[in-house]
Amino acid sequence: MKSVAIGRGVQMPLVGFGLWRINNDSCADAVYNAIKSGYRLFDGACDYGNEAGAGEGVARAIKDGLVKREDLFIVSKLWNTFHEAPRVGEIIKKQLADWQVEYFDLYLMHFPIALEYVSPAVRYPPGWYHEGTNVRAGKASIQETWQAMESLVDQKLVKEIGVSNFSGSLLMDLLRYARIPPASLQIEHHPYLTQDELVQFAQKNGIVVTAFSSFGGLVYPKTEKIDSKSALSLLEHPTIASISKKVGQTPSQVLLRWATQRGISVIPKSTNVERMSLNLTSTAFDLEESDMKSISDLDIGLRFNDPMQFLGEFPIYY
Amino acid sequence: MKSVAIGRGVQMPLVGFGLWRINNDSCADAVYNAIKSGYRLFDGACDYGNEAGAGEGVARAIKDGLVKREDLFIVSKLWNTFHEAPRVGEIIKKQLADWQVEYFDLYLMHFPIALEYVSPAVRYPPGWYHEGTNVRAGKASIQETWQAMESLVDQKLVKEIGVSNFSGSLLMDLLRYARIPPASLQIEHHPYLTQDELVQFAQKNGIVVTAFSSFGGLVYPKTEKIDSKSALSLLEHPTIASISKKVGQTPSQVLLRWATQRGISVIPKSTNVERMSLNLTSTAFDLEESDMKSISDLDIGLRFNDPMQFLGEFPIYY
Repeated sequence: MKSVAIGRGVQMPLVGFGLWRINNDSCADAVYNAIKSGYRLFDGACDYGNEAGAGEGVARAIKDGLVKREDLFIVSKLWNTFHEAPRVGEIIKKQLADWQVEYFDLYLMHFPIALEYVSPAVRYPPGWYHEGTNVRAGKASIQETWQAMESLVDQKLVKEIGVSNFSGSLLMDLLRYARIPPASLQIEHHPYLTQDELVQFAQKNGIVVTAFSSFGGLVYPKTEKIDSKSALSLLEHPTIASISKKVGQTPSQVLLRWATQRGISVIPKSTNVERMSLNLTSTAFDLEESDMKSISDLDIGLRFNDPMQFLGEFPIYY
Repeated sequence: MKSVAIGRGVQMPLVGFGLWRINNDSCADAVYNAIKSGYRLFDGACDYGNEAGAGEGVARAIKDGLVKREDLFIVSKLWNTFHEAPRVGEIIKKQLADWQVEYFDLYLMHFPIALEYVSPAVRYPPGWYHEGTNVRAGKASIQETWQAMESLVDQKLVKEIGVSNFSGSLLMDLLRYARIPPASLQIEHHPYLTQDELVQFAQKNGIVVTAFSSFGGLVYPKTEKIDSKSALSLLEHPTIASISKKVGQTPSQVLLRWATQRGISVIPKSTNVERMSLNLTSTAFDLEESDMKSISDLDIGLRFNDPMQFLGEFPIYY
């Protein structure tokens, strides 16, 4: 399995398994089956609401002798309501307990957005809304949160730390004050949103980029903005279809390989065993430079995951 | 003259005079004539290389009894090479001395970009390049710089502080840790780049937005990116021309009024006395809502002032 060195040299698999939108009840089986299929990296988050299920899957796989903990690369994320320094230290203990592990390989700040604290006793995962449709901003600065995450490394609760959904100016600022620089940047990345400038900046600074939504906007609700750009599903796009035919790989494999060949790791989700396996083996072929370029040329700056679109607040991409 | 309250209630004129691209030798006359024409706000910056000239113009106007210092609203900006806390306190004294004033009404962080320090004895203004085409990033965080700027308020060297060229995520972060919140946000803003989300966010948070480049990209060099969007000069755009004819005002007046009617202050530059006056009186009429909308609908997200375009570095808008 291809991997890439992140942070202080930990090897991270280039293809992992994303846990977003898997419900907690089926998550144990999904994780267990993915491990059986050969997956070693799992990309989870408090906000996905399935870390307990994921932890069951891991525990079962370890108990059955499929893997040892150190064979796995477990990624989790700090939710927005836990950005205050003391909350960071509290919530990771719950997240580790849910996963039934002693440490995360990588722990990311999920968004550069602080929300008011919600106690896990009141609601977990807390989501975006405080009550009903009431979104309440919190006061913790990114630096406060980052320093608390750095201390998780000191405490050996996480091996590496990183960020998600950060844009360039905020990442530049983080690099100025970070004692432990971010090992990883997870962003929306697909041929409709190639983010070349941000990707190059991150890579130049030794930050490994991970793509989410590699297949585009399949799982996002249609919005006026998105419809108006008439974005065809990438899995059905003629450019992808024709390259897929030429190289004898599925469209999803082509989309994943385009990313990994750009040095970007991927975390596709599938609960279909055959597709799981196709995704995992997507690094076993190479795309020609001209095909890489044809795919990159599909860029239209189309972002599906944007709080301004789904909340009407927090202009983190403006 | 229309004005808007900023920060702790200081009144700021909605139309000011921008000093970018006026050379130092002609700056004294330009400022003097502008004061004579009725301008009270001047938007300067270390980087414009003309603060000594501007100061001469101000001093002459005060000496001649045209205005008193307290009638003027002087804006200046902190350059990127002076972001370290001790440098902030040093350089403002030089800038105030150049202007021959005791305080600035508003002092802005020019870019959210820290560059390595250059001594004024070596080169002033220092510009972007360290030597030749060598750009060297500095290490001061935005928070360090902001806190140093807050202390300028405490020392009464500036009445209000703000930022320029900030994007949403960085501004959101600043609001979390600011002891003195930014009174003003200066950004590129014209019908090709309306920045609605950022403007609304700023205004909702009590930050007055000031537009630079209200006429679009007149002064910027053509680049591949800009040509490819075939952006017609806004002053010649048929939509602007037709509204201009209808309301009996010049295209530049229409463009400025469109901004001020959005609650955004403007800082046009002209060394032509007639145009100076036309710009200044651009708040004396109102545009109908339908015309406001036709102008706003010209938005194509076209940014002219972008370090990634002119330097190939610092992805502050990505």
